[in-house]
Amino acid sequence: MLKPSPDTVHNLLISPWFSWFLSLVNKVTFLQEFFMKRVYLLRSNIIDSPPLYETLHDYPTVSAHTNNSLYARTLPPVPKDCPTPMGSKGPVELPHTDILMKFFQRTKFRPEPMGSSVLMTFFAQHFTHMFFKTDYRKGHGVTWSGHGVDVTSIYGKDVHVENMLRSFKDGKLKLQTLNGEEYPLYLKDAPVEMTYPASVPPERRFALGHPFFGLLPGLFLYQTIWMREHNRVCDILKQEHPDWDDEQLFQTGKLILVGETIRIVIEDYVQHLANYNLKLKFLPHVLFGENFQYQNKISLEFNHLYHWHPLMPDEFNITGSVYPMKDFMFHSEVVVNHGTAAVTDAFSRQRSGHMSHHNHGAATQYVLRDAIKTGRELRIQPLNNYRKRFNLRPYTSFEDLTGETKLAGELQKLYHDIDAVEFMVGMMVEKRRTRNLFGSTIVEVGAGYSVKGLLSNPICSPQYWKPSTFGGDVGFEIVQTATLEKLFCANIKGKCPLVSLRVPDFQIGDVDELSNFVVKDEL
Amino acid sequence: MLKPSPDTVHNLLISPWFSWFLSLVNKVTFLQEFFMKRVYLLRSNIIDSPPLYETLHDYPTVSAHTNNSLYARTLPPVPKDCPTPMGSKGPVELPHTDILMKFFQRTKFRPEPMGSSVLMTFFAQHFTHMFFKTDYRKGHGVTWSGHGVDVTSIYGKDVHVENMLRSFKDGKLKLQTLNGEEYPLYLKDAPVEMTYPASVPPERRFALGHPFFGLLPGLFLYQTIWMREHNRVCDILKQEHPDWDDEQLFQTGKLILVGETIRIVIEDYVQHLANYNLKLKFLPHVLFGENFQYQNKISLEFNHLYHWHPLMPDEFNITGSVYPMKDFMFHSEVVVNHGTAAVTDAFSRQRSGHMSHHNHGAATQYVLRDAIKTGRELRIQPLNNYRKRFNLRPYTSFEDLTGETKLAGELQKLYHDIDAVEFMVGMMVEKRRTRNLFGSTIVEVGAGYSVKGLLSNPICSPQYWKPSTFGGDVGFEIVQTATLEKLFCANIKGKCPLVSLRVPDFQIGDVDELSNFVVKDEL
Repeated sequence: MLKPSPDTVHNLLISPWFSWFLSLVNKVTFLQEFFMKRVYLLRSNIIDSPPLYETLHDYPTVSAHTNNSLYARTLPPVPKDCPTPMGSKGPVELPHTDILMKFFQRTKFRPEPMGSSVLMTFFAQHFTHMFFKTDYRKGHGVTWSGHGVDVTSIYGKDVHVENMLRSFKDGKLKLQTLNGEEYPLYLKDAPVEMTYPASVPPERRFALGHPFFGLLPGLFLYQTIWMREHNRVCDILKQEHPDWDDEQLFQTGKLILVGETIRIVIEDYVQHLANYNLKLKFLPHVLFGENFQYQNKISLEFNHLYHWHPLMPDEFNITGSVYPMKDFMFHSEVVVNHGTAAVTDAFSRQRSGHMSHHNHGAATQYVLRDAIKTGRELRIQPLNNYRKRFNLRPYTSFEDLTGETKLAGELQKLYHDIDAVEFMVGMMVEKRRTRNLFGSTIVEVGAGYSVKGLLSNPICSPQYWKPSTFGGDVGFEIVQTATLEKLFCANIKGKCPLVSLRVPDFQIGDVDELSNFVVKDEL
Repeated sequence: MLKPSPDTVHNLLISPWFSWFLSLVNKVTFLQEFFMKRVYLLRSNIIDSPPLYETLHDYPTVSAHTNNSLYARTLPPVPKDCPTPMGSKGPVELPHTDILMKFFQRTKFRPEPMGSSVLMTFFAQHFTHMFFKTDYRKGHGVTWSGHGVDVTSIYGKDVHVENMLRSFKDGKLKLQTLNGEEYPLYLKDAPVEMTYPASVPPERRFALGHPFFGLLPGLFLYQTIWMREHNRVCDILKQEHPDWDDEQLFQTGKLILVGETIRIVIEDYVQHLANYNLKLKFLPHVLFGENFQYQNKISLEFNHLYHWHPLMPDEFNITGSVYPMKDFMFHSEVVVNHGTAAVTDAFSRQRSGHMSHHNHGAATQYVLRDAIKTGRELRIQPLNNYRKRFNLRPYTSFEDLTGETKLAGELQKLYHDIDAVEFMVGMMVEKRRTRNLFGSTIVEVGAGYSVKGLLSNPICSPQYWKPSTFGGDVGFEIVQTATLEKLFCANIKGKCPLVSLRVPDFQIGDVDELSNFVVKDEL
């Protein structure tokens, strides 16, 4: 009964009035371990593991656990025989997506209110495509995901692709030198499955870990840096273990990169998203002996929730050269031409867009429309049902949802009842949480899936989490001390560029701002 | 320091002096729950979950967790650069399998000393082929297993086979009537992958859940009974839920059969194998909130350990008709001709063979030879290393291992050092444990894998283990009250035959026998 609400917890974690305590926690190991353990368990225990539901059935099945080519789902679909598409409330026919898209299309670029950089946006995109892999040809509930941090985004989806990207010498991946820097091979030299449009000429086609990573230079940048990192780690391992063969160096390097990925995701990326005064740490050992499942399955709802396309600006500025989206998409060579240092620096200085309504760039609007349609086809339950499932107070009115009146009024006309607002639509119009990038639904629902997915990785289990797994103390140390900045700086020649998930000189509003923060800057 | 050894625990659990206490435990719910929880955790916590090793590498890899087409392994292989095949001890060249096979070939049939029936042996075979599925064409470390109790033995390995076996009416499987009883379809009517030799005519070929189940009528019997059970359960579900479609009846029936399988395995089969005075119960709820992983991966070592071919007699007696093995193999029609009642009764009355040396029937000797060779190829560590890994006292001499002197002497000449005895060979010559079918290695190592595999099934997790998963109270009740006897009796018309894992009138030796039990009856 005395358990504080997620909003109260959030406010404590961001409040300047409480920050003195949290900065103490950040400095004292046992307090830090105590708090991180609470965060891990609180977040992850909300997710059913193993999952009860998959996308083919409306009830528990054996295949929810055994069939990895289906997304899990946290809530079963709205029953087929319900009076309305959203259950018992709302209209008999949901608003046409043409009408809804008007609320989402970008009119004027609105910057991300927490100062997130484009480097942050590309981090999110590169990282999450590791496990959000809908197999559209087979259906919107079908996936070719490995359901966790399996670094297939870097090494490819299977041994075949992995072998195409490997050099088979000293454990390393095959790279080529262009403009004096190391880059992934051209596709012609490592023919793996990539989805380039026919118009893209061979010299702009590269062989990457994910068929989709030729889409944007930001993805190409991360792929390049991670591949260089793998080779850097192999050099260190080789020095430690001169007797190891190529295979052992490769496999152990890969395990180290899993560890680095998880650490950077938690301590840099999630820290940025959460914006807590509590310093988030990657401390797998605090869960040893706890009731915690080291397994994960990606949920349909997590995939939907992670449609953050409004973060993407319409153009990119790299040291003065401005690329509109059409000259940026499928132009990996932009990175090669400017060099990784200049591009990293530019991405760190450019602001992302606000993940909200009326801010969806033209290039990706079809993705959102598809997601809304998929949500209907797979009968995803309404927003308020998910809020209840994740211990959030259901919204009581449209104003309560949007934090304003104009959009609220229009939505009310379309949905009639706040309990009938769709999951996807609701998240796109939800008022922003104090000192956060998103509304509380994305934060609270997403954090559950996220923490669960990160900490449930096998390397976090007691039998793995020790130096011997990572080739000894030196390898374990790489995992223990990884940061995003180091990742870039260690793999870019010369002076290290700015590596930041937040644009420089950005000031988060002060104390006074806190109370009005939410409503003031919307629309 | 005060933790009793596995042998002490075993002796307490079988000792007549302690049975008064255990019969009390069997009657008092909270004591029963306390003891079962201890048994579950003690057994399963010994298994690394997720596993650290797979069969392709000698060190931890990402794929130990992600690649389901490899067996896990509990201990890594003997390092390649060791002075001897077994590490540092024993001969530089291991004894030729021709020499070893002389110790294993059946000279005279020795009956199973605990009175196990042939129905027990076929239960073991039918059940374990659900998850022991080596993909020989691809290698001895490769598997097509689902790594747990996924009932693929009944329904087939994938949706394609499952669909071939389904009627798509009222959730039921397709059966045909032969001699007034329901049986699986002929292969021609449901062309799934089966491995019949070319000589087997169409009227002896049936479509079964596992390609291999045409091998022996005992497997065909279990397949038939389980398929009838599925249809019986669907009838009950249909009565409870007249509105349910075929798919929901089928899927829920399947979940119920998973539950029935696990309960029968624990309460009938494992109870028989353990032979404890403690009544083993299937009580998943006692693990709720505990540090227990609901995931499983089949280990190479578990597969090797389960090579129990000496249990198989050389001929089968069904109400006076005697079938030598050659007339029994690939003769599923034997069951149809005699009827399921007569066959079940006969299998319950016929004694299995002693799982020991000098008792391996001619038909399967090649399997053992292959297993020994595989063990060498995959460099499985010696028996004593596994005994240490599973908290057992390593054997100190060959006499200590075999419990006699003749075989011990011959083995010593071949292996030189007790620490160099191979895992597989060691288990085949090990002295029998008091009041048990096997030596202590098979029992203690096997029990870990077994309990882990059974209790880690998703249906045992808190989110699954409730009536709604099984179609309500009626379905849950079927799971809660399943027994082997009920399984057969509910699915055989007329008077129920004898259904027993132990032949009738068998008396386990009395108290006096206990001390000498082990040595007396060997050879």
